[in-house]
Amino acid sequence: MYKCNPPEGMRDLLPQEMVLRNHVTKTILEIYNQYGFMQIETPCAEKINFLSSGEGGENEKMLFKILKRGEKLNFSTTTKEIDVVDLGLRYDLTVPLSRYYASNHAKLPKNIKVIQIGNVWRAERPQKGRYRQFVQCDIDIIGSSNVIAEVELILATSEALRNLDFRNFRVRINDRRILVCLARYCDFEENTFDKVFIILDKLDKISIGGVREELEKSNFPTVSVDKFISIITLVLEKKLILDSLLKFLPNVPESVLEDLRFVINTVQQQAENEYSIEFDLSLVRGMGYYTGQIFEIEVAGYKYSIAGGGRYDKMIGKFLQGKEDIPACGFSIGFERVVSILKEQNFIVPQSKKKIALLYNENLTSFNHILSLARELREKGNFVSLEVLKKKNTKKQIDALSEYGYTSFAIFQNNEPLIIKEINTSKNHTE
Amino acid sequence: MYKCNPPEGMRDLLPQEMVLRNHVTKTILEIYNQYGFMQIETPCAEKINFLSSGEGGENEKMLFKILKRGEKLNFSTTTKEIDVVDLGLRYDLTVPLSRYYASNHAKLPKNIKVIQIGNVWRAERPQKGRYRQFVQCDIDIIGSSNVIAEVELILATSEALRNLDFRNFRVRINDRRILVCLARYCDFEENTFDKVFIILDKLDKISIGGVREELEKSNFPTVSVDKFISIITLVLEKKLILDSLLKFLPNVPESVLEDLRFVINTVQQQAENEYSIEFDLSLVRGMGYYTGQIFEIEVAGYKYSIAGGGRYDKMIGKFLQGKEDIPACGFSIGFERVVSILKEQNFIVPQSKKKIALLYNENLTSFNHILSLARELREKGNFVSLEVLKKKNTKKQIDALSEYGYTSFAIFQNNEPLIIKEINTSKNHTE
Repeated sequence: MYKCNPPEGMRDLLPQEMVLRNHVTKTILEIYNQYGFMQIETPCAEKINFLSSGEGGENEKMLFKILKRGEKLNFSTTTKEIDVVDLGLRYDLTVPLSRYYASNHAKLPKNIKVIQIGNVWRAERPQKGRYRQFVQCDIDIIGSSNVIAEVELILATSEALRNLDFRNFRVRINDRRILVCLARYCDFEENTFDKVFIILDKLDKISIGGVREELEKSNFPTVSVDKFISIITLVLEKKLILDSLLKFLPNVPESVLEDLRFVINTVQQQAENEYSIEFDLSLVRGMGYYTGQIFEIEVAGYKYSIAGGGRYDKMIGKFLQGKEDIPACGFSIGFERVVSILKEQNFIVPQSKKKIALLYNENLTSFNHILSLARELREKGNFVSLEVLKKKNTKKQIDALSEYGYTSFAIFQNNEPLIIKEINTSKNHTE
Repeated sequence: MYKCNPPEGMRDLLPQEMVLRNHVTKTILEIYNQYGFMQIETPCAEKINFLSSGEGGENEKMLFKILKRGEKLNFSTTTKEIDVVDLGLRYDLTVPLSRYYASNHAKLPKNIKVIQIGNVWRAERPQKGRYRQFVQCDIDIIGSSNVIAEVELILATSEALRNLDFRNFRVRINDRRILVCLARYCDFEENTFDKVFIILDKLDKISIGGVREELEKSNFPTVSVDKFISIITLVLEKKLILDSLLKFLPNVPESVLEDLRFVINTVQQQAENEYSIEFDLSLVRGMGYYTGQIFEIEVAGYKYSIAGGGRYDKMIGKFLQGKEDIPACGFSIGFERVVSILKEQNFIVPQSKKKIALLYNENLTSFNHILSLARELREKGNFVSLEVLKKKNTKKQIDALSEYGYTSFAIFQNNEPLIIKEINTSKNHTE
């Protein structure tokens, strides 16, 4: 049987899993549509040079590369990978979005709000909960430098999560420019800032002692490390909050603070205590391309964030070849994490339609009355499935259909009048 | 700009295209769900050996192959492709379905009705209307040998097409076993039957003269070719119909005819003159795996069929290693063809929600009243987008938004009371 498995780290999706995934997709799309976001799509494959340009960071090491075809392929002169590949599977949706905007911006509104939902591929070491093909869901506002974009992204994303029954989640917010002020304040060298941030990003996993240890191991000046750790300690002790920030980091520009205050206050007022937002100086976000505010959403009881994003004003312009910067701000919902949390919590997908099974004896001479009845029932808004009656094991058959949400059963035998059974299953899948 | 294009033969999808594609997907899924079909999904990539097993026919020549990664890759010993690849992108959804069923059948009902909608990849020579990544939509009933499965597939597919505003389409139906009888009746050699069928399959394109020519060029016996052409001529002249079939091909088993009559009569009664179904001995269908009835749907005015399928009882069992045959019957809707026909006919996607744009002056000091108004309007069932007001060019901005279906506009300036404009565009995108 082994040879019938899907490729390592990739999945076959069963009908019940698809019902949940479709519900999540539909809910997310519906909410973002309500907020004026439009769906777009790029191909799953991109040119190999584009995917290896450096924008993808660590993800570029996990590329699935596609072999050249036909005459372009010549093994006799091959010494390395790049000679034989011309395409790769996308590892995220952000880098392709930049290319999409550069290629199509003339046909698009100047300010555009877009949503993408699609598969991405990464050749990670397979492990529980990590897949080599998985769905990402990215939402981006391109062309607006105003932080009202940040507010909209946070509000729409929170609304989507609320519609998926998430409650009391927490938005953490920071600004990359404040992190830069922090590193500068601690006298790290400018060209080592990213390395410092990458270590700080591990805080959740390795705690403050681990961060200190890694900084020391990397031979940063002791004075800088001490200063840095003392500030992060203040953050963890909730002593360094937004109102007291200037006391500890006097080099943060007022405009940056003002924008943060605006976003936090506006979101707080709109959230009406349904969820919370708070400043967190220790929030880093992995990718190097962020230029302004960054944010993550955490659900109580789960270690990993379920959504994250930020402003990246310098990336899209790069692909417009020498033209100006294009401001952009994005959010990414961890689609697979959301699905797995809902599964864990035995989330029941709401279903408005009744599922009816019409079980027929295969030897019937005419099916027209059954087919007409089925059509009538469908027109009335039901799901109706025709199934061959298992005469010797009808009970088992009905139980199996109940597992898929069927609650009404009609049996057609020997052209006799039909028998209809209404089953009230204890596990009610349909309401 | 060239370097920002997607890979050759692949597409970026604009928002308006996505609206149409999503409508087609949603309509198809909804109808098949009503008929008891459940959605499933396989990964986009499969193991290379599996995709090269021969089941895919010509499609296997158009494989996108994925390079091995890490230590498994060694160019110093490479002399051919197979040494350096381990995966490929799927070229259809039928072959992966067989693997899926073999791998998951223990977790699935014995009789299962499934629908798959997903991308497939073929490295075809790029040309107008042909893409290297495109969506397929396959519907299959597995586990039932009764021709009621054929009836259900034809009825559900017709219903889906009717819900996409297709009218007066025509279902052509034939049976592979009748084609075998025809070839046998004409005294072709058994091992050349497939070659004869492949030539007959070109009838639409090369007409009867072309078929004769190709048969003669392939050195088939003249007596066989003459007999064959005379029968196909009778078909084209509508002289060979189902009722007269035995007169010309006395070797066709009665049971095969009976099944055909059953399907045609049942579908005709259910169709109520909304569409038609007719026997067509010249229908072949490309793939070699069909074992029983085959069918195609044609829309008046279009050369290519928009859906096609048939029974393939011998394929799925192969992957269950030595166990019995698993009967199966499938239909495939030409998703891209359906989309391009609808586009050509300027099909307007029905939209139940009103689209409202709230245009705000960036310098406003508080956004809470706008955000609260937006939320209220969304709760009432509208799509509401916040947009930065272009003070110098408001008319152009409103025109641009109208293109995307917005019909109501509110303008917020200097914290003054808002101005609301209702625009009745002549191109009404929203009803």
